[in-house]
Amino acid sequence: MKVCLIGAGNLATQLGVALSEKGHQIVQVWSRTSKSAAELASKLECPYTTELSSIYSDAEIYIIAVSDKAIVNVLEKREWGNSMVVHTAGSIPMEILSPYCTNFGVFYPFQTFTITKKVEFDHLPVCIEANTSENLELLNSLAQSLSQNIKFVDSDQRQHIHLAAVFVCNFVNHFYAIGEELLQKKGLDFDILKPLILETAAKVIDHSPISSQTGPASRKDRNIIDKHLAMLSDYPDLKNLYALISERIIQTHK
Amino acid sequence: MKVCLIGAGNLATQLGVALSEKGHQIVQVWSRTSKSAAELASKLECPYTTELSSIYSDAEIYIIAVSDKAIVNVLEKREWGNSMVVHTAGSIPMEILSPYCTNFGVFYPFQTFTITKKVEFDHLPVCIEANTSENLELLNSLAQSLSQNIKFVDSDQRQHIHLAAVFVCNFVNHFYAIGEELLQKKGLDFDILKPLILETAAKVIDHSPISSQTGPASRKDRNIIDKHLAMLSDYPDLKNLYALISERIIQTHK
Repeated sequence: MKVCLIGAGNLATQLGVALSEKGHQIVQVWSRTSKSAAELASKLECPYTTELSSIYSDAEIYIIAVSDKAIVNVLEKREWGNSMVVHTAGSIPMEILSPYCTNFGVFYPFQTFTITKKVEFDHLPVCIEANTSENLELLNSLAQSLSQNIKFVDSDQRQHIHLAAVFVCNFVNHFYAIGEELLQKKGLDFDILKPLILETAAKVIDHSPISSQTGPASRKDRNIIDKHLAMLSDYPDLKNLYALISERIIQTHK
Repeated sequence: MKVCLIGAGNLATQLGVALSEKGHQIVQVWSRTSKSAAELASKLECPYTTELSSIYSDAEIYIIAVSDKAIVNVLEKREWGNSMVVHTAGSIPMEILSPYCTNFGVFYPFQTFTITKKVEFDHLPVCIEANTSENLELLNSLAQSLSQNIKFVDSDQRQHIHLAAVFVCNFVNHFYAIGEELLQKKGLDFDILKPLILETAAKVIDHSPISSQTGPASRKDRNIIDKHLAMLSDYPDLKNLYALISERIIQTHK
């Protein structure tokens, strides 16, 4: 398909590379800043623009991969006619597109994206939604060219997937950072935690999180919990988090 | 080495299997309950007992792998003479052994253990500590037979490693459970989260957690944060956690 990529951030970059590798033609890249537009365009060997009014009209699909708050701004600055337009945001309802477009939907590849780390799309859940069954079919065929794992989800479900992702990815990553912080204070390296981090993730691939739970709270071991709370006395925010999460684990496993 | 395993839980089981595979001889297993003692002894093809006074005297090392609060009870019930005795607990100081033993230390393989999932020890950090340099050498040679990743850490460092583990393993796993809970309410399967969980863990193997941080809080996206808090209005404990962790991410990344 002929694809126009609107955005040049983490998701736009990884998605552009993956689409291009699967034989789709990226006809143009748009970004607000010419530096990022040029960088992605050079990676994808395609033209770029920083003017929304200069976006070509010959793409079969326009993929808006900008920050949530910039979506409406992008939509307002151009006539979309009958073009197929999708956004890629977890928490924005599909209907945001309806005042501006006739054919529209959502294309939400569910992963954590950074510009520098290449993402394999083959088994990635791609959540799609569209305003008509024809448009859903079109999105489905685009998604299937990237991944074997397509999910038809509505806007409400997608928002809950995004909320769950904040817990299992963003907050989890912050807990990795807390682990690093706690070890650094004692001259220890973050490396020590890596096998445990990988095993903790690997466990829930084959077993449910509930049955995988270990640690002092799941054993209701108040001695260790109290000892850990005392060790955190210099970090009131971590102490508070430790107490709240331990209590929730105890309640879940009682 | 001739090893006596005191305990038959998650750690004792995985450690016994690994030691046995590396050619060590498990001379005996002790557990409070005959069922678990018999199960592990059958796995390791060795005798077992449920009487601490019936533990053989010919082992070169006695590995105490019981719950923290049972350690002293085990130590009190038998004369240890000059035997080498180690415990395996993250948060118990080595000195707990000193009133009962002449030769002692700590042998702390750093991983999350469940009875049913086999653990590969080859690259596992094994944290060791001993009361003399000779005993440390003995523990080092035992540890090296299992893993290439030996760490000499004192009791204070080990307690901090254990505290960090609660965040990066036990609390992380609970967040996986929260993710499952949030999806179930919308008829969605936990499977959707698996690629994201694996990628989030894989990212910090090559990049620091700080540089891997993504999500609404790291972008200070108050719109999404407020939307998520509103979605959690039926879960006051999760709403509270969401707000606290988001605030901490914002502070870390400002």
